[in-house]
Amino acid sequence: MENISDVTVEECTKSRYITPMRLKYKQNGSGKIWDAMQVHNSVAVLLFNKSTDSFIFVRQFRPAIYLNNSKTEQKNDEVIIDTDKFPGSLGITYELCAGLIDKDVSPTEIAKMEIHEECGFDVPMESIEHVTSYRSGVGTTGSKQYLFYAEVTEEMRTGKGGGVVEEGEMIDVIEIPKSEVMTFVMDENINRPIGMMFAVLWYFQNKTKS
Amino acid sequence: MENISDVTVEECTKSRYITPMRLKYKQNGSGKIWDAMQVHNSVAVLLFNKSTDSFIFVRQFRPAIYLNNSKTEQKNDEVIIDTDKFPGSLGITYELCAGLIDKDVSPTEIAKMEIHEECGFDVPMESIEHVTSYRSGVGTTGSKQYLFYAEVTEEMRTGKGGGVVEEGEMIDVIEIPKSEVMTFVMDENINRPIGMMFAVLWYFQNKTKS
Repeated sequence: MENISDVTVEECTKSRYITPMRLKYKQNGSGKIWDAMQVHNSVAVLLFNKSTDSFIFVRQFRPAIYLNNSKTEQKNDEVIIDTDKFPGSLGITYELCAGLIDKDVSPTEIAKMEIHEECGFDVPMESIEHVTSYRSGVGTTGSKQYLFYAEVTEEMRTGKGGGVVEEGEMIDVIEIPKSEVMTFVMDENINRPIGMMFAVLWYFQNKTKS
Repeated sequence: MENISDVTVEECTKSRYITPMRLKYKQNGSGKIWDAMQVHNSVAVLLFNKSTDSFIFVRQFRPAIYLNNSKTEQKNDEVIIDTDKFPGSLGITYELCAGLIDKDVSPTEIAKMEIHEECGFDVPMESIEHVTSYRSGVGTTGSKQYLFYAEVTEEMRTGKGGGVVEEGEMIDVIEIPKSEVMTFVMDENINRPIGMMFAVLWYFQNKTKS
């Protein structure tokens, strides 16, 4: 997973994935300009395995996190990141099972698919509880994320998950016991997005009385 | 604030603010390409006004949220957003007091400056409590946000806040009573980022026993 090598970085003037849009508008009559990106809305799912009394997260290498945690340097005619100084582990994150809403189906259906693809469980639609929705970003992207909660058992297991190999996804599924999850969530040495942290706090405020 | 007019949208090939970087790397020997953006790390502060028993948030128009909540249309030779169909209120967010780490000072010092600029309170450094840090994004941006908590009183008030007018900032400071804040935080009709929601849940888990 974290065996990362041969990293080069180049400025890219045309990206299929990152398209800046320039908004010009007037606010209270004053002319303004802001560059923003349109990105897909998404879903995220807090998964709790009742059979093991553990939360299920996904572990993966995220290039954007790696870039933020490392330094580029010029080498010959390339800009590189030296993986001896900045090992791939710097880009490893722990996140909720999640996915983009890039199909014309409901957020709950996307959640069901992602639980299956990434984590290897077949969960009935009616067991996927809508928690809330919020903004993943407010500055350059303004996309919405729908948060769900689902409980699974070993009987629902269909495989080992890991993402869609044909799409190049490399995802490890990990379980963190409920008794250890708060320490895990608050550990600043771990790269974890704020959505995962909110979800776990929500769980303790709404799903337990302990 | 939400009086937005004359909105045009254009693709922009060169943005000072959004620069896609292309990372090429090998993961377990397989060649991969990922486009990511380098953005500044940031701070956010949950502010609690002890004099009014209320939380302090900032309210502002966010073009990226407005773009996500509206639809563009072709009009003559321009792409516009019709503000009769999509009023500026669709882009209004409620957020924590926050700012980018774009100066060479500590996150706590940035937090102190933002509390002053955006919300109009002079808070001593030692009253600004580090809560945690996390990733604001994992896909296209991988920046870190440092979350702080500070209690203020009316005696610390220096002005009305509102951001730096010379930088074009237009920010309303609002207070939500503690008794109403959970309803506010979970209201999906309000555009609010997940960091603010996490902070409020953290408060109730750590700062009260009620």
